[in-house]
Amino acid sequence: MPSNASQVTHSSGNHGQAVAWASRCVGLPSFVVVPKTAAANKKAAIQAYGAHLIECEPNPAARSETCERLRQEKQLEFIPPYDHPDVIAGQGTAALELLDEVNDLDAILVPTSGGGLISGIAIAAKFIRPSIKVFAVSPKGKMLEDCLRSGERLWPEPSQYLNTIADGIQLQSVGHVTFPILLQLAEKEVFEMASSDDEIIQGMRFVFQRMKLVIEAAAGASAAAALSEKMRSMDSSLRKVGVILCGGNTDIDRLPW
Amino acid sequence: MPSNASQVTHSSGNHGQAVAWASRCVGLPSFVVVPKTAAANKKAAIQAYGAHLIECEPNPAARSETCERLRQEKQLEFIPPYDHPDVIAGQGTAALELLDEVNDLDAILVPTSGGGLISGIAIAAKFIRPSIKVFAVSPKGKMLEDCLRSGERLWPEPSQYLNTIADGIQLQSVGHVTFPILLQLAEKEVFEMASSDDEIIQGMRFVFQRMKLVIEAAAGASAAAALSEKMRSMDSSLRKVGVILCGGNTDIDRLPW
Repeated sequence: MPSNASQVTHSSGNHGQAVAWASRCVGLPSFVVVPKTAAANKKAAIQAYGAHLIECEPNPAARSETCERLRQEKQLEFIPPYDHPDVIAGQGTAALELLDEVNDLDAILVPTSGGGLISGIAIAAKFIRPSIKVFAVSPKGKMLEDCLRSGERLWPEPSQYLNTIADGIQLQSVGHVTFPILLQLAEKEVFEMASSDDEIIQGMRFVFQRMKLVIEAAAGASAAAALSEKMRSMDSSLRKVGVILCGGNTDIDRLPW
Repeated sequence: MPSNASQVTHSSGNHGQAVAWASRCVGLPSFVVVPKTAAANKKAAIQAYGAHLIECEPNPAARSETCERLRQEKQLEFIPPYDHPDVIAGQGTAALELLDEVNDLDAILVPTSGGGLISGIAIAAKFIRPSIKVFAVSPKGKMLEDCLRSGERLWPEPSQYLNTIADGIQLQSVGHVTFPILLQLAEKEVFEMASSDDEIIQGMRFVFQRMKLVIEAAAGASAAAALSEKMRSMDSSLRKVGVILCGGNTDIDRLPW
C-alpha cells in the first residue's frame, strides 16, 4: 500500500478501526464509510482512533459507491476491507499467532464475510501445517458451501446483506480475490448456522460466561460452530480445533440476551 | 493442606470455585457455604465444578458458623478463604505470573477483602522486585488506611459486609494472618473508592469495552483505581502499574449499567 496518500475504506468493524489507527500512526487523515445503521459503539471506536466517519445507506452497493466517490473527490487511497493480497496477508497473521501458541491444531473455524480473514488464515496455516483443515463459519443463507462445491459464484449480484445479528459477517458473497483462494484451500463443508440467531447468541453467551471475553456476534458464530452437533459428528481426527474470535465490537449496553 | 479429607469453605466467588474444582481433581466431595443472596451464576459455577452448595444468611458470622457446623458434623477439612499461609501462597502466584510477563512494574493495585490475595501478591512481588509498591483497593468504608497507619485493628467485631456492588471485596476487615503481612509489605495509602458504586461500575465498563474482558465489580474497582485522579496525582515514579483483575464472577444477564 502507498504510505503517502490519505486513506478511505468501508467497514463498520475491525477493518475500519484498523485503518483509522494505522493512519493515525503515520500521521495521515483517514475516512471510514459505515452503514448509518451501524451500532453507536462501532462508530465511536472508529472516530476515537481518529478517522472521519462517513455514513451511507445500509447495503453493500452504497458502501462501495460512497467509498469510490470519496476516493475520487479527495484523491484518497482505497484500502479494501478484504479483497486485496496485502489485507489478506495481514489478516493471515492471526493464524501465525495461533499456531505459534498451539502448534498441533487439526482444524480452524473462521467467521467469514468477504473472505479476507479466512483466506489469510488458510494460506498461513496450511503453509505451516499442511494437514490442517480450515472451515468457514457463516450465518444462514450464505450459500458458500454450494459455491465451493460447484466452483461457481452462485450469489446474486450485486451482493447482499444477510439478515443476521452477526453484522461482522453479514455480506453474502465472498470477494473475487478471496473466492479462488477458498476454492483451493478451505474445506468445502461450511458451518452455516442452521436457523435463527439463537445459535450465535448462545455461542456469544458461552464465551462471555466461561472464557470471560467480550466478543461480537460474528465471533459467537464461530464458538457456536465449535460447540455444534455438526462439529461433534465430524471425522474423529478433528480433535483439536482452533476457533477464531474475530472481534469484540459489541454494544455492551444492548447485549442480545 | 491434608489431601485425604473432604473439604469445606465459605466463599461465593473464586475461592469457592477453586475449592470445588480442586476437590473434584482429587476425587473428593466438597462443601461450599455461600450467602443465600449470592448471584445465581456464582452458585451455578460452584455447583458446576462439583461442590455441594450450602446457603446461609448473608453476613460474615453466618458464613463462619455454618462452615464450622458442617466441618464438625461431617468431619471436613476447612480451607480458609484467605487467612492461611497456604492459601496466601497460592494467591501470590498471580504476582509471579504478572512479573514474569512484565518485569519492570512500579506498583500493583490489588482488590482487597480479607487480604489473602494482596498478602500473597505483596510477598511474591516484593521478593522478586523489592522496589515495587503494592496498594490495596477497596470499596468505601473499609477503614484499611487508618488501620495500616495506626497499626491497629480499628474495625468493629464481628466483621461486617460493606454496602457495595463489589461483592468480591465486601468484607470490611482483613484477617488476623493477613493484617500483619499488610502492615509490613503493603503501602499505607489505600485506594478506597470515594463514594458510591459509580466509580466501580465505570471501571468495569472500561475493561469490558476497551480490553474486551468480562470482569466482576471487585476487579472494576481495581481498574477504577488505576484510572483515578489519585493515581495520576501520585509520585511520578509510579509509571507502570499492574492492575489485578481478580475475577469474572459477573451475572451477564444483569450488568450494572
